[in-house]
Amino acid sequence: MPSPRLQVELPPWVDGFVDWQRHYPRLEDRMALVVELGHEQVRRATGGPFTAAVFERDSGVLVAVGVNMAVPAHNCVLHAEAVALMMAGARLHSHSLGVEGMPAHELVSSCEPCAMCLGATLWSGVARLVTGATKADAEAIGYDEGPVFPESYAYLEQRGVAVVRQVLRDQARTLFTEYRAAGGVIY
Amino acid sequence: MPSPRLQVELPPWVDGFVDWQRHYPRLEDRMALVVELGHEQVRRATGGPFTAAVFERDSGVLVAVGVNMAVPAHNCVLHAEAVALMMAGARLHSHSLGVEGMPAHELVSSCEPCAMCLGATLWSGVARLVTGATKADAEAIGYDEGPVFPESYAYLEQRGVAVVRQVLRDQARTLFTEYRAAGGVIY
Repeated sequence: MPSPRLQVELPPWVDGFVDWQRHYPRLEDRMALVVELGHEQVRRATGGPFTAAVFERDSGVLVAVGVNMAVPAHNCVLHAEAVALMMAGARLHSHSLGVEGMPAHELVSSCEPCAMCLGATLWSGVARLVTGATKADAEAIGYDEGPVFPESYAYLEQRGVAVVRQVLRDQARTLFTEYRAAGGVIY
Repeated sequence: MPSPRLQVELPPWVDGFVDWQRHYPRLEDRMALVVELGHEQVRRATGGPFTAAVFERDSGVLVAVGVNMAVPAHNCVLHAEAVALMMAGARLHSHSLGVEGMPAHELVSSCEPCAMCLGATLWSGVARLVTGATKADAEAIGYDEGPVFPESYAYLEQRGVAVVRQVLRDQARTLFTEYRAAGGVIY
């Protein structure tokens, strides 16, 4: 019984939806893209209401995007942030987005990451984490964020990962109400 | 610039190495397999000195194995535990290994998981986590385990994940000394 070969690929609509040529100078521009991806994800019902993207921090060049695919892909690891980080690593041919000679990168997520994705953020080598909706917003519709504590964020910051929260929070948390209204599974 | 399609597959030696037909009744049998995988991983230099497997908790049937592949696969998420859980999900066609009607599953890891993999353990639906070497053992050779606190384990246990630690710890931690002696990269 050989081990499976896994394919990890984004839902087919994603690449047509994203403008890869555009630059995203401001944090709000970057989060707006992530939230728009989230609306489309909910409309298309291709996974949970969580989306993320990796940018070059200073230039705003878009490097990778991710959407939650855990349930349809039968893969509990495929949260939006993990997917975006995996895609960015593949694009840059590096396990770390923070190696010498690379521009600094950042992860922009529609919601504060769960415990798993907070850990992945640290291993990815990004220099900044930018979030929209809060842990409390996700928990309010029944999501569990896992063992994330104030000390978890302090740990990242001590290791050089800047954290900027609640960018377009109000827009980002509408993804949860839309998702619930559409009858989406809370996993 | 379309998003990459990722292939996640174990190093080619793994399937020939594992006896998929064997049952592993005792925790020590299960950990011994994981540690043997680790020795081979170090010898073959196919990634970091961390290995894991998913078993049916009560029967000891082996469901999936994982080895650390982060650096060679350019993918910071591919720690041993995450890989084993992804493979188990693919094999069982389910994002969760804990859905009704399934036998209870457990994750056996050569080392206490990092913050990311501890989160993945929770999302995977396993009923038990079994570890060999400790966080301190990993940190002693320079690995960072991320924001894992006593409260993190308490969180898992409150949600029904039993934790059994230091099974064949002495054997498991030899993987680190072997890896260091072989000049392996600490990532």
